[in-house]
Amino acid sequence: MKMLKELLSVLLVLVTLSSSMGKPEKTTPKKEKRIPQTLSRGWGDQLIWAQTYEEALFWSRSKNKPLMVIFHLEDCPHSQTLKKAFAEDKDIQKLADEEFVILNLVYETTDKHLSPDGQYVPRILFVDPSMTVRADITGRYANRLYAYEPNDMKLLLSNMQRAMKFLKTEL
Amino acid sequence: MKMLKELLSVLLVLVTLSSSMGKPEKTTPKKEKRIPQTLSRGWGDQLIWAQTYEEALFWSRSKNKPLMVIFHLEDCPHSQTLKKAFAEDKDIQKLADEEFVILNLVYETTDKHLSPDGQYVPRILFVDPSMTVRADITGRYANRLYAYEPNDMKLLLSNMQRAMKFLKTEL
Repeated sequence: MKMLKELLSVLLVLVTLSSSMGKPEKTTPKKEKRIPQTLSRGWGDQLIWAQTYEEALFWSRSKNKPLMVIFHLEDCPHSQTLKKAFAEDKDIQKLADEEFVILNLVYETTDKHLSPDGQYVPRILFVDPSMTVRADITGRYANRLYAYEPNDMKLLLSNMQRAMKFLKTEL
Repeated sequence: MKMLKELLSVLLVLVTLSSSMGKPEKTTPKKEKRIPQTLSRGWGDQLIWAQTYEEALFWSRSKNKPLMVIFHLEDCPHSQTLKKAFAEDKDIQKLADEEFVILNLVYETTDKHLSPDGQYVPRILFVDPSMTVRADITGRYANRLYAYEPNDMKLLLSNMQRAMKFLKTEL
């Protein structure tokens, strides 16, 4: 019985050795298969997102739809909870899909008009098809005018509806 | 026999009618479930892509890696064949993954340095971590200096290696 046990453990060691020897170091680097990055970044996989601000402005003008720009960071907890509320809100998702050009960014643009009261995340700015940033459409926080929290979805929805009433540009 | 045939065709018409009647117009709109858009757009799903030029420049400077910018269009056949060759070339994918910051764009940026001889697709530009566009790194076509074709992958690889030899910025 003892011999059998010893034999088994020797066998186990051999199996372990051969399996680690059979694994060529070079062909199995640390990196596993990556999941392709999405443009939505979890803010609504079924929506069609612009990639860049230039592209979003082009679409906004040519489709005559307001633009919604979401600034966020992947590892910011406030961004994460807002993202979850935004992605799960069917009314917001539907309106965004049908009536808006949408863009989410994890880096600031060079356009200072998109940070009327500073660069922070999360913040949401609307841009009129006339290419005017709607600094008048704000959330409920005086120190961060364009910030929203997960329980502000009703306000965000009504702000989206405000953004759909275009500015009359005077000639 | 004729009656049976007529009965069958009446039945078929009824089945067709009822199935088209049973399809409520409102709950089955034309749009089916969309596939989330990826940042790679098929140029290498396993690579990590920057979203915008600003982001790519930031990464290039902070990681001290050259930037490769690919301009293309989804429905341009030359872009499609180049994309296939690029995505399938293991040497290019590996070098791009390890040594480059990469960005693919379907819209032009506002930076004119990225179109030294005009805006056309497909074209590939390299940018030094010092934020200088490497207009000296060109393909083999005199009328479109930054264009590549599927059988230019060796040249593209050697151009990538050239881009890895950084410019010495004079002080």
